[in-house]
Amino acid sequence: MRKYTADVGEEDYGGNVELYGWVHEVRDLGGLVFLILRDREGFAQITLPKKVVDRELFKKARKIRRESVIRVVGEVKPEEKAPNGFEIIPQEIEILNEADAPLPLEVTEKVPAELDTRLDNRFMDLRKPRIQAIFRIRHVAVQTIREFFDRHGFVEVHTPKIVSTATEGGTELFPITYFEREAFLNQSPQLYKQALMAAGLEKVLEIGPIFRAEEHNTVRHLNEAISVDIEVSFTDHEGVMKYLEELVKSIHENVAERCERYLDWIDARVEVPETPFERVKYDEAVEIASRKGEEITWGDDLSTQALKFVAEEFDGYYFIVDWPTESKPFYAMPYEDEPEISKTFDLMKGWIEISSGAQRIHTYDLLVKRIKEQGLDPESFGFYLDTFRYGMPPHSGWGMGLERLLMAMLELPNIREAVLFPRDRQRLVP
Amino acid sequence: MRKYTADVGEEDYGGNVELYGWVHEVRDLGGLVFLILRDREGFAQITLPKKVVDRELFKKARKIRRESVIRVVGEVKPEEKAPNGFEIIPQEIEILNEADAPLPLEVTEKVPAELDTRLDNRFMDLRKPRIQAIFRIRHVAVQTIREFFDRHGFVEVHTPKIVSTATEGGTELFPITYFEREAFLNQSPQLYKQALMAAGLEKVLEIGPIFRAEEHNTVRHLNEAISVDIEVSFTDHEGVMKYLEELVKSIHENVAERCERYLDWIDARVEVPETPFERVKYDEAVEIASRKGEEITWGDDLSTQALKFVAEEFDGYYFIVDWPTESKPFYAMPYEDEPEISKTFDLMKGWIEISSGAQRIHTYDLLVKRIKEQGLDPESFGFYLDTFRYGMPPHSGWGMGLERLLMAMLELPNIREAVLFPRDRQRLVP
Repeated sequence: MRKYTADVGEEDYGGNVELYGWVHEVRDLGGLVFLILRDREGFAQITLPKKVVDRELFKKARKIRRESVIRVVGEVKPEEKAPNGFEIIPQEIEILNEADAPLPLEVTEKVPAELDTRLDNRFMDLRKPRIQAIFRIRHVAVQTIREFFDRHGFVEVHTPKIVSTATEGGTELFPITYFEREAFLNQSPQLYKQALMAAGLEKVLEIGPIFRAEEHNTVRHLNEAISVDIEVSFTDHEGVMKYLEELVKSIHENVAERCERYLDWIDARVEVPETPFERVKYDEAVEIASRKGEEITWGDDLSTQALKFVAEEFDGYYFIVDWPTESKPFYAMPYEDEPEISKTFDLMKGWIEISSGAQRIHTYDLLVKRIKEQGLDPESFGFYLDTFRYGMPPHSGWGMGLERLLMAMLELPNIREAVLFPRDRQRLVP
Repeated sequence: MRKYTADVGEEDYGGNVELYGWVHEVRDLGGLVFLILRDREGFAQITLPKKVVDRELFKKARKIRRESVIRVVGEVKPEEKAPNGFEIIPQEIEILNEADAPLPLEVTEKVPAELDTRLDNRFMDLRKPRIQAIFRIRHVAVQTIREFFDRHGFVEVHTPKIVSTATEGGTELFPITYFEREAFLNQSPQLYKQALMAAGLEKVLEIGPIFRAEEHNTVRHLNEAISVDIEVSFTDHEGVMKYLEELVKSIHENVAERCERYLDWIDARVEVPETPFERVKYDEAVEIASRKGEEITWGDDLSTQALKFVAEEFDGYYFIVDWPTESKPFYAMPYEDEPEISKTFDLMKGWIEISSGAQRIHTYDLLVKRIKEQGLDPESFGFYLDTFRYGMPPHSGWGMGLERLLMAMLELPNIREAVLFPRDRQRLVP
């Protein structure tokens, strides 16, 4: 009966199991050969005492190259010194695909490797349990996001990634040749999810790639990332902040509960944050950073140094709210009684921004005014502006970087650790 | 208490409810005004008898422009002639955003509109219940796919959409300028999901966009589509065909069960197909089409006409299996004892291909041989070929067009009906 190594237990002692996996290690002690088999869920020791097992099998086993793919059928015996307390005495070892030597990257991690070397050989790097664990946790995070929003009546949508215009004017875009025309890779589903509010879908969720041609090369930027986006009609920024904090809490809960093994592999602990998260006003953040020596002009975005100063004052997740209207995109809704301040928020953990959102402007005239004030041309917004003319409901939303969240939750030193095949300024392969 | 129109019931009679939605129709009979309010889940009749309601409210209501967004608070009363058997006598009508006139597209569908006009004004088109219904059903289909594969131990992954090389050589790609370099939009996650088999993830699922620059302009092609892709180690083509047919069955079951209202809106019936689906050999398909007059050379792909002839013989979903090796991509596994035939399959409904898959070649030497035989250059496959050298397990997989499945299940006349904002040869906006 086929099992994962992690599923072999006392009930199998004395019986036979079938395992599939990779040869993690070969230890040849002359009269005794040990193979360590690795599968997706862990390790198992295959023990071949020369006097006990078939002679041909013994010869075959001692010559197997590391990282070859094998199928093993054998008897399970308790063995205290082996991983998970059992060993397998094989009747059969089938080599499904033999590995070449030398290996381009060590899976046993006896020799530490640089991130670049690891990413160049990502298919080998991912064989390390502590690396693969990140993606098992990522899976649970993504499942949680969908379950959470399905439960709350959201409709999951897919909006186009090939678009004819820039979403937010300023930011850099990757140009595409779309048949005879120039087009771009979408940097955010913002305009489309707003259009879906005009379409009456009311609550939408999108989980999809976003593309940013910014030349940043930092530990927290990617040029292709997965964005979790929601947009909700008939609610304000506080309404969508509640969804956000409850979602983040729910992801931590599920990961803590369902990913015990994988958290062990990366030696991480996930603490479930309490909600509501603290709301820190932009003005207060400015005050903290200024007091600590950072020079800030009111109205500016907060610099990395300013955010680092602010982060010293707050544990875990917190919101920075009520940003100056001029520091945020044109679609952010100003407060009615204080239009220089906007109904906006960033979700932070430490000095890293996880998510950004706002109540949006839903009236045509105010939107056109704000587009002009930001030095953009309303003419270039085509279909987007039209959606505000024939019944656009009040609405709010946010976008969250999936990799940023994983980085924050698992305290990863580099965002590239949270992506299978990262894309950055230099990296286009694999 | 805020409710959707569909959730107002007998228990609300005599009490007050709060509704949010769009003014679908205004009927002014002089002493009596009816507003039909439309929300995401249906319709409600707002009745204003001049003698009963507030005078200002009455004046306001008769002047409301169609498709304006309103909030209504009022008393629920049984009324046989109204939608769902109730009407609302309002105490309050708040206009949240007034619509301009004339409307660019009629939501009431009194005047039929061409597909192009509809897609140009998609945010209005989507307000029609029978159009929006497709996307409510699509949501349930997508949720089902994730639940199904989560239950079967799959890991959901996201692979890069910006890539440096073509997946399958032949097909046309959209070029991108990636900083100083040329890159492409990925036409399939094929090479990456195979790399993840080498990485030991064993069972992966991806739901993401694919991009094809083919110049087709038919009712069943899109230049940007959502592909559902799986790849599974230690199993053959039959193993992944079982996942596929059980998944398709499960989607039909869930849609039939959870989407009754939306199926009503589009007047569709979903019949749950029985598994296993019929397996029709390529040779048999050729025989059927030839007998009916289509000229086919053994080894060729099947023409649309040939598939239409074959489709006449099979109800519902069926597989065409065992395709000539030369008619399929280089990575398809030939049968050991009959290498001109491959372990491949297409899932069909009628003459439309829903999914295509195969057992893959997992040995380096055979793969290089097949790449050369197809006139491609192994050098250009870079990192992909390396993944076969250091322990690639046997594996199989398939890709399914999400929009193709919806088209088949709901019998949509054009695949564009299954996409919020379709991309085709001409269409880049909205």
